Amino acid sequence: MNDLLIRNVRPWGGVARDIAVTNAVVSSGAPASAEVVDGGGRILLPGFSDAHVHLDSSRIGLPFRPHSTPPGPLWNQIMNDREHWRDAEASVTERATATLGSAIAHGMTSGRSYAQVDADCGLERLDGVLAAREAHRARVGLEIVAFPQAGLLLEPGVPALVEEALRQGADIVGGIDPCALDRDPRRHLDAVFEIAERHGADIDIHLHEPGELGAFSAREILRRTRALDYRGRVTIAHAFCLSELDALAAGALLDEIAELDVALTTIAPSGRAALPLAEILGRGIRIGLGQDGQRDYWSPYGNTDMLDRAWQLAFTNGLRRDDDIEQALGVATLGGVAVSRGRSAVGPDRGVGVGSPADFVLVDAETPTSAVMDRPGGRTTIRAGRVSAENGELR
Amino acid sequence: MNDLLIRNVRPWGGVARDIAVTNAVVSSGAPASAEVVDGGGRILLPGFSDAHVHLDSSRIGLPFRPHSTPPGPLWNQIMNDREHWRDAEASVTERATATLGSAIAHGMTSGRSYAQVDADCGLERLDGVLAAREAHRARVGLEIVAFPQAGLLLEPGVPALVEEALRQGADIVGGIDPCALDRDPRRHLDAVFEIAERHGADIDIHLHEPGELGAFSAREILRRTRALDYRGRVTIAHAFCLSELDALAAGALLDEIAELDVALTTIAPSGRAALPLAEILGRGIRIGLGQDGQRDYWSPYGNTDMLDRAWQLAFTNGLRRDDDIEQALGVATLGGVAVSRGRSAVGPDRGVGVGSPADFVLVDAETPTSAVMDRPGGRTTIRAGRVSAENGELR
Repeated sequence: MNDLLIRNVRPWGGVARDIAVTNAVVSSGAPASAEVVDGGGRILLPGFSDAHVHLDSSRIGLPFRPHSTPPGPLWNQIMNDREHWRDAEASVTERATATLGSAIAHGMTSGRSYAQVDADCGLERLDGVLAAREAHRARVGLEIVAFPQAGLLLEPGVPALVEEALRQGADIVGGIDPCALDRDPRRHLDAVFEIAERHGADIDIHLHEPGELGAFSAREILRRTRALDYRGRVTIAHAFCLSELDALAAGALLDEIAELDVALTTIAPSGRAALPLAEILGRGIRIGLGQDGQRDYWSPYGNTDMLDRAWQLAFTNGLRRDDDIEQALGVATLGGVAVSRGRSAVGPDRGVGVGSPADFVLVDAETPTSAVMDRPGGRTTIRAGRVSAENGELR
Repeated sequence: MNDLLIRNVRPWGGVARDIAVTNAVVSSGAPASAEVVDGGGRILLPGFSDAHVHLDSSRIGLPFRPHSTPPGPLWNQIMNDREHWRDAEASVTERATATLGSAIAHGMTSGRSYAQVDADCGLERLDGVLAAREAHRARVGLEIVAFPQAGLLLEPGVPALVEEALRQGADIVGGIDPCALDRDPRRHLDAVFEIAERHGADIDIHLHEPGELGAFSAREILRRTRALDYRGRVTIAHAFCLSELDALAAGALLDEIAELDVALTTIAPSGRAALPLAEILGRGIRIGLGQDGQRDYWSPYGNTDMLDRAWQLAFTNGLRRDDDIEQALGVATLGGVAVSRGRSAVGPDRGVGVGSPADFVLVDAETPTSAVMDRPGGRTTIRAGRVSAENGELR
């Protein structure tokens, strides 16, 4: 029985009221004998959805480690991670489970994690992410991408590993930089789409490639999406190229992304890579926000708090108006839900109306915008009508 | 007697030791009968210096207010502030004092605040900033810039107000966008430098102007700096143009800035405006970090925590290596000291060696980089050998 009565909360900062949950969904009447949560006048928002996280690389909670990544091409960074990850003070299972738990305590209720699959680690890192999902099954809805971080073609046996990962519980076929990494965009993308079709799986491709190179790869992804009628089933992650093309070229690409219902995810990077958020949202393109790797062998940044990342999205896009910042908060919450499960999975009335999934976070703030600015603690996370965390502690 | 014994701290994350302070300066022997602070193994850093803050506009601590600034030219935003600031729930004195106090509680020991001077507010806002400085005199070394936010020439009587501000306690002559705002760079800059010379005051000019326009104004500032031998006495704030010029043009401008010992300050903005930090530091140019306006009628951002702003500086510059991030922390601490009082005011051994001013912040972190990443609470602020704040509370 996932019934709950949430008393005295302000949905999206509106007027205080009670919210009844029956069978994990917001209902109109009060449930008969439900658990009661005292909202204490806090803001109620849809739970955070981390649409792009690498749970298998995180060192959150372990001793801080000086950054060791050499500069240069992506391959150097991949090899740096490969050199070090087995020496972590805790196993991938422990690290992924702790990191996911911390994110839940900060308000996460759903998301999508990558699990690296390559010739070095085999399925060992996938096992860790699967274990983390199992440990938190009641607290979070997590999709897992079988992610060939080191390419599909450069080392032997990787496509077969991706297929085995799908059989063992991964949901989505990953890909990465078809030109820059594998240096064979046709074979890379053909392999990704073939595996996905064979397993009936969706697709999620990391695209760091810059400018016109990235646009070329994006168009190749779109061409296959159209040919195989994979509408609504493909995500392009990062897509830095979109911010580097001129407005006309970016607009044309975004038009086709919208037409084919391809989703985007961003980690709200700094500098020139910030995605053109208004152009994306204006076209109704599904877009989610993610925390990427966190305090790992790649980067010292990241802290499992999607509200911090929502601030980062607002900041990097120069948003100041309250409605714009609430839209960024929408990307951090319902955005990921739409990326994972489609628009229909987002409940009515910005995810808090009758019929919405009872996945919420309660935040002690005056308004949604002040919540983004202050990123206050003292949150309550509710997943499927059950309290999953309170005051930074898992239930 | 500003004597102190600081036990068990790790300067810049190094080996734990005690630090003796005699007469507000780090000494080699233990002082005879000094107050003792238990560092508890925390990191000791030079205190934060907020080199660019608008204390007179802050609404920190007041109810959150929806953002009302219209888009468009700077003048619209100036008028929006003018329309609203008198209606704040607290006086300028109260707001500036509370904001400065909160910054001190976060570890600030010195800095530079603007006080807007214009035909509408006269010296009313200056009075508030002077009162805030007086209230915290023992806790912070604060310079005040008489800042003609609405231009020197557009409204009557502003140059005379700036001069009166200097007589009443402001230290520095401000200027702003000589082309874009006053639309008369020659008269604007001549007035700024004339007033400064007459009062023996330094100069601090806001320069938001983009690309080649900003470079033109910067060169006009440098031309006057050279002609009047104002070496070491001029600061250019923001200088967004530096990040928009091509590398050769920016390099030439930075070379001249270095030659004339002109200082820079940045608020670590997002997007394309991030300053070329490595190019600046590589030339030995003095550069400070500031929090700008904070949760005011201009913007909802800002929270009085310079450690948060140091994170922002590292993030916007894409810094990942520990030594780079420590350098950003150096900008947030000793950078502002050098901007205000010259390089000689920075003590030896990155501001923590014998002979350094005893202006410190203790932070509960593993390393300086993890301090920037985590921005932990539980700090102790020490100013001139006296504890000025502990655990978020002023002493």
